[in-house]
Amino acid sequence: MKRTVFFISDSTGITAEAVGHSLLSQFEGIDYKQERVPFVDTLDKARECERRIAKARQRDGLRPVVVTTLVDPAIVSIIHEADALFLDFISTFIAPLEAELGVKSSRAIGRGHSRATSEHYAERIEAINYTLAHDDGVTNAGLEMADVILVGVSRCGKTPTSLYLALQFGVKAANYPLIPEDFERNSLPAGLERYRDKLFGLTIAPERLTQIRQERRPDSKYASVENCRWEVAAAEKLMRREGVRWLSSTTKSIEEIAATLIQTIKLDKPSY
Amino acid sequence: MKRTVFFISDSTGITAEAVGHSLLSQFEGIDYKQERVPFVDTLDKARECERRIAKARQRDGLRPVVVTTLVDPAIVSIIHEADALFLDFISTFIAPLEAELGVKSSRAIGRGHSRATSEHYAERIEAINYTLAHDDGVTNAGLEMADVILVGVSRCGKTPTSLYLALQFGVKAANYPLIPEDFERNSLPAGLERYRDKLFGLTIAPERLTQIRQERRPDSKYASVENCRWEVAAAEKLMRREGVRWLSSTTKSIEEIAATLIQTIKLDKPSY
Repeated sequence: MKRTVFFISDSTGITAEAVGHSLLSQFEGIDYKQERVPFVDTLDKARECERRIAKARQRDGLRPVVVTTLVDPAIVSIIHEADALFLDFISTFIAPLEAELGVKSSRAIGRGHSRATSEHYAERIEAINYTLAHDDGVTNAGLEMADVILVGVSRCGKTPTSLYLALQFGVKAANYPLIPEDFERNSLPAGLERYRDKLFGLTIAPERLTQIRQERRPDSKYASVENCRWEVAAAEKLMRREGVRWLSSTTKSIEEIAATLIQTIKLDKPSY
Repeated sequence: MKRTVFFISDSTGITAEAVGHSLLSQFEGIDYKQERVPFVDTLDKARECERRIAKARQRDGLRPVVVTTLVDPAIVSIIHEADALFLDFISTFIAPLEAELGVKSSRAIGRGHSRATSEHYAERIEAINYTLAHDDGVTNAGLEMADVILVGVSRCGKTPTSLYLALQFGVKAANYPLIPEDFERNSLPAGLERYRDKLFGLTIAPERLTQIRQERRPDSKYASVENCRWEVAAAEKLMRREGVRWLSSTTKSIEEIAATLIQTIKLDKPSY
């Protein structure tokens, strides 16, 4: 039988699932089913949730693991009536933090995410719009407003990274492909020299690049390993000569690329 | 003096910051500076990090709050030498989970995010590409592959929501604007009727929509409150008649919209 892992939250459940996955990734070979239960913000929903856990306990013949970010003591206590292992990621730490800060917490539900009407939130939406409008080198207008300008060969991960930077960190990220014409001219795309301190490069192992490009244009020159080797070598040479900092995206997740970039160019952006 | 809050991780620090913010949001009126310290994955980096915490302790005259998702006991013990309140979000829960599962954890660092080379990760990148290629009704091709098709008036939040769904949940999200022509014809954009079960609507308070549109096209008919009222009422009428489920984005964050949508249409997608 597979054990069931619940991610329970009075808000979206996204943070509960993130910490839960992080913890579970420490246990290799454990096979489990997962159930996300967001918006458990009333006593009725808590009772329904308790019954769901009890049902999984019976069905699986194994105690569920219940990861929560709940804060309301009444809701927590109803959920805890089920027979399960409870890992309460927020309420566990409220008492020590209250003691340290010398104030009582509000135990208010639904505080996980910044308010949609706050100024902070408006900046994030602006960053998303900026990033979409500056994808793939479509325009040089407004580059002075970019927080970062990503460069790299086609399909090395610039667009997903740019979007993640905007959504998660409110970073205005423009991105430019480095293309054969740039290598032949042996210079950065026109207009980028002025923004050298904002440039950040992505590179990628040629073998991995071939794989990715093959899915887009099978058996093309564009996707061939020879061409990928040539483009990657030329892009790295160009970035080295121009003093552009870079990292390899080959084995890195979007989160790892974004966090490394922010650390490297010292962007002071809080995560949403 | 402001207290310093550290978010320390052996990986990106994104999860540490998310749970930390979630916890701190329970304490209103506490003003703090935050420092993210990602990739603390060696003893040397742990020592450097311990010194940074000690320095903040001295500078602020207040004990820092240190939120960690560290798992390596040697790294944890070095960091703990500083004078601070430590909230160890992962290591705190490892022992009870080991006892429940009856297995030892690997205590392996850098496990927070899915591997960039996994199949799961490739699906996520595919979802991002799909979503970008199906933004703003640009094409009906491949709609049968969409997990969800968002509809709503211009500027109600379809694009940021679609991108978040793709990045965070690997959801293939297409989106279509509902425009005056649709209201005059009194029908959904052509070609969408076949996919009624994938449709999900966003609506928004007309006053909020005016605000948002004013920033794009000040003093236009498009942004006027009269026109926004008319468009929103017409869109809601159309969605009601066509049986499209919808929610209002007015006060909801992207995370809240996405989590509600996934729950409503019962998409079975794990979060990244």
